[in-house]
Amino acid sequence: MLSNIIATKPEDLDLAIGLDIGGTKIKCGIVDINGKIMGTPWEMPTNARGPRERIVTNILELVNQALSVTPENRLRGIGIGCTGPLDINTGTILECNNLPTMHNYPLRHIIELTTCKEVRMNNDANAMMYGEAVWGAGRGHSTVLGITLGTGCGCAIINKGHIWNGYTGNAGEIWQSPYRNGIIEDYVSGPGISNIYKTLTNKKISAKEVSERARAGEDDAIEAFNRFADGLVFALAWTINTVDPDVVILGGSVANAADIFLPRVRSMLPRFITNEASERVEILQASLGDDAGFMGAAALMFE
Amino acid sequence: MLSNIIATKPEDLDLAIGLDIGGTKIKCGIVDINGKIMGTPWEMPTNARGPRERIVTNILELVNQALSVTPENRLRGIGIGCTGPLDINTGTILECNNLPTMHNYPLRHIIELTTCKEVRMNNDANAMMYGEAVWGAGRGHSTVLGITLGTGCGCAIINKGHIWNGYTGNAGEIWQSPYRNGIIEDYVSGPGISNIYKTLTNKKISAKEVSERARAGEDDAIEAFNRFADGLVFALAWTINTVDPDVVILGGSVANAADIFLPRVRSMLPRFITNEASERVEILQASLGDDAGFMGAAALMFE
Repeated sequence: MLSNIIATKPEDLDLAIGLDIGGTKIKCGIVDINGKIMGTPWEMPTNARGPRERIVTNILELVNQALSVTPENRLRGIGIGCTGPLDINTGTILECNNLPTMHNYPLRHIIELTTCKEVRMNNDANAMMYGEAVWGAGRGHSTVLGITLGTGCGCAIINKGHIWNGYTGNAGEIWQSPYRNGIIEDYVSGPGISNIYKTLTNKKISAKEVSERARAGEDDAIEAFNRFADGLVFALAWTINTVDPDVVILGGSVANAADIFLPRVRSMLPRFITNEASERVEILQASLGDDAGFMGAAALMFE
Repeated sequence: MLSNIIATKPEDLDLAIGLDIGGTKIKCGIVDINGKIMGTPWEMPTNARGPRERIVTNILELVNQALSVTPENRLRGIGIGCTGPLDINTGTILECNNLPTMHNYPLRHIIELTTCKEVRMNNDANAMMYGEAVWGAGRGHSTVLGITLGTGCGCAIINKGHIWNGYTGNAGEIWQSPYRNGIIEDYVSGPGISNIYKTLTNKKISAKEVSERARAGEDDAIEAFNRFADGLVFALAWTINTVDPDVVILGGSVANAADIFLPRVRSMLPRFITNEASERVEILQASLGDDAGFMGAAALMFE
């Protein structure tokens, strides 16, 4: 009995369940306070067009599987990283293109009521970059600026172990910011690369295929990545100058092509940031891979 | 004796001295915890090209005048807003164009040693906007984004009563960020307006004169402000999307021409920020006028 009481001191609650809810799949895992994944993570398709009851049941199924193998006296709670936009104050999914049947769904509250655990929720980009900040490429850095390059273009700000959420939890939603005659996401994203390549060649292929052709030396593919890099320099300059980080982490699927675009970014960026920032700010690739989503979600419980 | 002890409880230290050190003039005043200016502020020219000993002696002269009329048992300390760049961690002036003889001068430490008071120091834009946030146009708002439009283009971020300084105290140094074929300050600043007008007319007049001509209906002057407004929309979109504030305050001398450019800014901005932000974020003019500098500096002592 006494050992039970001692075991529930906050510092003994060294495990958290992390849930990564995207438009394509849901991933769930158990992570300890040092960022070690316990056992094998669970995963299932989101079936985002399906009825919300089905989606929620799937989510709860994953959570129950994780709960069933987690010692209760070590569980700090459940962290959720979810595709947004969200109202993070209430833990509600807002009008979300990736989860069209979940509008205004109070997901955090439902998981809390069902599991009787503390639940924290943030958008997937913030959660992922929070994981990178504490356990990944940002470990040991104080002010982390995370840029997510995937289906879209996002940004997360983490300072001394805390996420900057802004007034409504929408800090870092830079995708709609102006660039050339459009918005930055038209250039700085996977679909952006694909579109630039189509403009150059009239052929539509995925960003991954463009990257393979660029590595094989195809001029149009290299030019597509150059234009992507020009846009990324733009986004980095504005966000670095505003936030003043000591490290920038590039994450998301397109960051896997950093070998192609990063040299150009590094050579162009100094023109648009201070000398001090040029000398100081490291630009790194995310290091936690496909697990970053649920790991970062779990990390929210240790914030 | 007992009354002295009681009178030095932190909450009784209800006065602060504020120092606003610019390239042109130095202003100093006493401000109470509610933002009320006590007596008449002092002011003298900086003589920025003069020897540093002379400048420092002038600063100490102003501080001593303020100290001589401040009840010691009510004084919380001395706040300094100084033209930068600074190292705010050590309170040192770095390589600063506006104070060319003061490079690497540890100003905060010198004032501390001389006065035996607690001294806090930040750059002038942050200090000014901090004053606006707590006592001026931002009062009652939670997350304030301040944009300074004067000789240059700056930005300050204040969240729940605290300045976001970034890793090195250079958060908000957006002036060097890319815009069109140059940097944003080429367009979004007093000299920027003056230059745009010169491009249009081949005549060089000050931004203030351009604003007077715009108000009188001159087409070129109106066009100059339209191009300024386009740049400002750009800067606002990137910083609003990154920071997610609930209010934007426009300060600095050019903000006095808000009647000319703000309608265009308000109509163009929604294209580049989320609908929620468009509906929520207020864009206001700074309200503390020429006193904002030393008031904000004093406010640092109540942070």
